[in-house]
Amino acid sequence: MKTRDKILHKSLELFNELGEPNVTTLLISDELEISPGNLYYHFKSKTDILTEIFGWYEREINLLLESPNSATDIEDQWFFLHLIFENIAKYRFIYKDVVNVLERYDEVKARFQKIILKKREASLKILTSLQQQGSLRANDSELAALGEQIVLTATFWLNYKLITHGELTEDMLAQGVYQVISLVAPFLDDEQREQLNELKTAYL
Amino acid sequence: MKTRDKILHKSLELFNELGEPNVTTLLISDELEISPGNLYYHFKSKTDILTEIFGWYEREINLLLESPNSATDIEDQWFFLHLIFENIAKYRFIYKDVVNVLERYDEVKARFQKIILKKREASLKILTSLQQQGSLRANDSELAALGEQIVLTATFWLNYKLITHGELTEDMLAQGVYQVISLVAPFLDDEQREQLNELKTAYL
Repeated sequence: MKTRDKILHKSLELFNELGEPNVTTLLISDELEISPGNLYYHFKSKTDILTEIFGWYEREINLLLESPNSATDIEDQWFFLHLIFENIAKYRFIYKDVVNVLERYDEVKARFQKIILKKREASLKILTSLQQQGSLRANDSELAALGEQIVLTATFWLNYKLITHGELTEDMLAQGVYQVISLVAPFLDDEQREQLNELKTAYL
Repeated sequence: MKTRDKILHKSLELFNELGEPNVTTLLISDELEISPGNLYYHFKSKTDILTEIFGWYEREINLLLESPNSATDIEDQWFFLHLIFENIAKYRFIYKDVVNVLERYDEVKARFQKIILKKREASLKILTSLQQQGSLRANDSELAALGEQIVLTATFWLNYKLITHGELTEDMLAQGVYQVISLVAPFLDDEQREQLNELKTAYL
């Protein structure tokens, strides 16, 4: 791996582990056993590093959100949600200190807000398609609140688990998926609800 | 007001405004136009200040959560939730940087987790009482997920609004109350659901 890539991967690791506000460029170069000057040759500031890593996150989540997802099967939705949660876990430093990070990185803030908006649109699209196929019963105002709730839950699930359990475990992702699907469950028909219960038994 | 109280109130104000990680004791004494030595006479560290303010928060929220709340009327629940959201807004510095703050203040962490647990119990108590009176239809596993979801939503509502809208506005509290009640709505009978719609029109 090139030094530049090493710096980025180590930074992501440290951001996730220690929280972005607690990581300095000096710590990053120390951990890589390179000189601060060498790091500075590749990146002029922590902002440059963070912005580049944010770009990775952005590309990955956009790929997911833009993938054609017209799946009506609840198991396919489960899988899709799992990929979303995996993306959140991979870049959890953004989510862990989200208010703080966005307040300090103005450029990233606008781009993160766009992603949140896209997530809400994607949720609404899936919900609307379920509604049109007759497997989901909700009026427009319920649908809007539900779409918002799904995004809020996905965004803060890891934080909620972190503050209630102290550390992240592998099955927290599956729990998050289940929690999101539970939001939709009361609006589903009996058949879909039963399928959800089976998935819960299989994955949790 | 005594200097000691002035320090506490100013600290709460600065924590809320700038985020706790960005406030130093030097900034607090500067803002109060007192010497760092004078501040040090009252508080030996920022931890002492934060712990005392956390104690205020804890007393206030416990008073709320321990108040006898057997109200079955949805308007009473709306009011109760509003008080919860007001408490969160008053001490929003805890919520804004919650993962970061709890990681750095071990003593506060355990106490905050207790509060979250109490909130979950209070939610479940209200939901169970609604279930027993026949105005809410849900099985035990739905009830548990719902109780958890209510606490998650209340805990992160302000953060969600902060990252999507940039700043807090007065009506965000009413919106938060509505969002929480929307979680319960699909499980309610028609009469209660209609009452909820009326409250929405009145408050939002």
